[in-house]
Amino acid sequence: METHTFFIQLLVILLTARLLAEIAVRINIPAVIGELLAGIILGPSLLGYLQPNEVIRLLAEIGIILLLFSVGLETDVRRIIRTGQKSFIVALMGFFAPFMLGFMASYWLFELSLLVSLFIGGTLTATSIGITVRVLSDVNRQNEPEGQIVLGAAVLDDLLGVVLLALLYEFSIGGGVSLLNASKVLVFLTLFFLLAPIAARLISVVIRHFEQVKQLPGLIPTAIVSLVLFFAWLAHAVGAPELLGGFAAGLALSRRFFLPFGIALHTDHVFSQRISDQMRPIIQLFTPIFFVMIGLSLNLREIDWSSSYIWSFSLVFFVIAVVGKFTGAILIKEIWPKRILIGLSMMPRGEVGLIFAELGHISGIFNNEIHAGMIIVIALTTLLAPVSIRGFYCRNRERFD
Amino acid sequence: METHTFFIQLLVILLTARLLAEIAVRINIPAVIGELLAGIILGPSLLGYLQPNEVIRLLAEIGIILLLFSVGLETDVRRIIRTGQKSFIVALMGFFAPFMLGFMASYWLFELSLLVSLFIGGTLTATSIGITVRVLSDVNRQNEPEGQIVLGAAVLDDLLGVVLLALLYEFSIGGGVSLLNASKVLVFLTLFFLLAPIAARLISVVIRHFEQVKQLPGLIPTAIVSLVLFFAWLAHAVGAPELLGGFAAGLALSRRFFLPFGIALHTDHVFSQRISDQMRPIIQLFTPIFFVMIGLSLNLREIDWSSSYIWSFSLVFFVIAVVGKFTGAILIKEIWPKRILIGLSMMPRGEVGLIFAELGHISGIFNNEIHAGMIIVIALTTLLAPVSIRGFYCRNRERFD
Repeated sequence: METHTFFIQLLVILLTARLLAEIAVRINIPAVIGELLAGIILGPSLLGYLQPNEVIRLLAEIGIILLLFSVGLETDVRRIIRTGQKSFIVALMGFFAPFMLGFMASYWLFELSLLVSLFIGGTLTATSIGITVRVLSDVNRQNEPEGQIVLGAAVLDDLLGVVLLALLYEFSIGGGVSLLNASKVLVFLTLFFLLAPIAARLISVVIRHFEQVKQLPGLIPTAIVSLVLFFAWLAHAVGAPELLGGFAAGLALSRRFFLPFGIALHTDHVFSQRISDQMRPIIQLFTPIFFVMIGLSLNLREIDWSSSYIWSFSLVFFVIAVVGKFTGAILIKEIWPKRILIGLSMMPRGEVGLIFAELGHISGIFNNEIHAGMIIVIALTTLLAPVSIRGFYCRNRERFD
Repeated sequence: METHTFFIQLLVILLTARLLAEIAVRINIPAVIGELLAGIILGPSLLGYLQPNEVIRLLAEIGIILLLFSVGLETDVRRIIRTGQKSFIVALMGFFAPFMLGFMASYWLFELSLLVSLFIGGTLTATSIGITVRVLSDVNRQNEPEGQIVLGAAVLDDLLGVVLLALLYEFSIGGGVSLLNASKVLVFLTLFFLLAPIAARLISVVIRHFEQVKQLPGLIPTAIVSLVLFFAWLAHAVGAPELLGGFAAGLALSRRFFLPFGIALHTDHVFSQRISDQMRPIIQLFTPIFFVMIGLSLNLREIDWSSSYIWSFSLVFFVIAVVGKFTGAILIKEIWPKRILIGLSMMPRGEVGLIFAELGHISGIFNNEIHAGMIIVIALTTLLAPVSIRGFYCRNRERFD
């Protein structure tokens, strides 16, 4: 491809994503929806200006790995411990309920295959902690008990989701669903999650040492990106999706990391902050490319909108998506307004849901229609969450304290 | 290409470049030599581990455009005016002398074609302001008169070099050397350099406005990278090399920009600093990839080291490179130690020389042997400059004040 063609394409992607994300935020919609829309507008669904090509895919992949890195970096594992039992219930139910309901609806109602049904169920388990945090902060409930429960549950859902993602990935590339494949993945995953953070922590000590003795500026961007790339490659080598490596690297460098056997390691707060600060421009540059690319890979024109299939599909799974996350919230011992707020806060699938859907699409499990249907469900939950949380909270404020 | 393969390749490039650059700096060699060596070691000359491929080329191209952007951003055009006549003499002689001598040696001594000779001459005109600044700071002469003269001359050489680069580029793609082609380029260049900075300045005002009203973080990386990509594309559209666009964008956003007709525009100092700070991690990440790629594209094995050709070629042009830059220094009215220091300071070809050489190589003008010869000359001048400046200054310190 000609260099200048690539430049114009990249430029258009960056600017459109930025513009639509900014507009989205101003009308209280999460930015990721704007970026997704940018891809839909630029792609075969509307303008047909861009097709995903190899270079864009690679940049998008780097973007999502860096995003998972920053998610890991910000993850506070101790939070789950602190909020205890309620987080667990909300998280576990909010994981298994959508999965089971989604699987059953897909397998028996829509008569899709085993693998597709597993993927659909998996996609519905996601919770976007980023969007959740932002919306709770908007209504100032993030430090309240219900906010803490939600955040703890979201972290746990992230971890469970990552395990499920690795399993589904193995099934999709390894040749089908089998106990052997599943066991293999779980063994590798356990080893990976035990060893990788230790290795990453050692490497970060090395990086920190060089940061102090170096004579050349710019060590952190190079070293951290290299670390993330290495762990992504390592994850692939053990049969897991690359973004898991990014997540593990971020987790290992996070400020309060809790290793197995009760060994707590504290990263130097200043160093962690420096990593955050210097990686931020790079992450902010690359990450939108991934969500634009999801939009680019969608072809809404190829869907038969006149048939009832896409509508019933989206509706059924949307209902399951909402109801599934509520089950956990309903079961815990809190006053009812808080239970509802928790349920609504767990709802947005956001970035994590899109990652699952993209995995399903790339591995050929989801055809274009199912892919579009899942994206519609994810987008709806992501769109409605902030609106409904804000609406519900404002109307019922007096019942909260 | 498989994603994970690309990740490992990128990771290896980043780490090797970083390692060798760090070692270089510690033995008082400019970092760019380390990055070049990383490419030579990884490429067909030694390990044969990597070949330049499409994605690496694109990332390298982005890197060099961003480097030129930061060069433009740091350029102080008023400096030339301030140091006046002496800078002019040093710059003009230091531009034309190597060019003429290089051209004549190539055309008559080595009997190479017109186009190749022009390219060789052009490559010898470069002065690496980055290395020069660093070395002068090392011996603490950057604020002294001779330091100011050198810096002013280097800026002017950069500007002249950029014009020459555009001309050579047009000759290489446009079908040969002709007055028509040359005039076309000069007209376009003039228009471009008059209009582009104004346009970039307007755009930067827009960016600054959005920076203040935005609700989403990360505007500057996205906006600046987009601006640079746009100007790179625009430069290509008017028939100039893309990196010229990056340079123009940087120039327009620099703190003290001096437009034609005496209109001085001052960018908000804080805004300029913010751009610098937020772009730095991105530039530090991408730029080394370009110099590694130059090393990757060299094949030292294919050169007949037993023949006298490569040795005589390198020696002749090395001598011309050194002598050519001294002519300007010799002609000005300063005490002799300062004239020598100025001559030595103008010597390193560094990054700019490598850009010329790479242009010659990519457009097929330089075969592998000439390409290698030019790189040897550039590397030698770059290596020897800091050593000789420091050596000369320390031995003759008392003669300076």
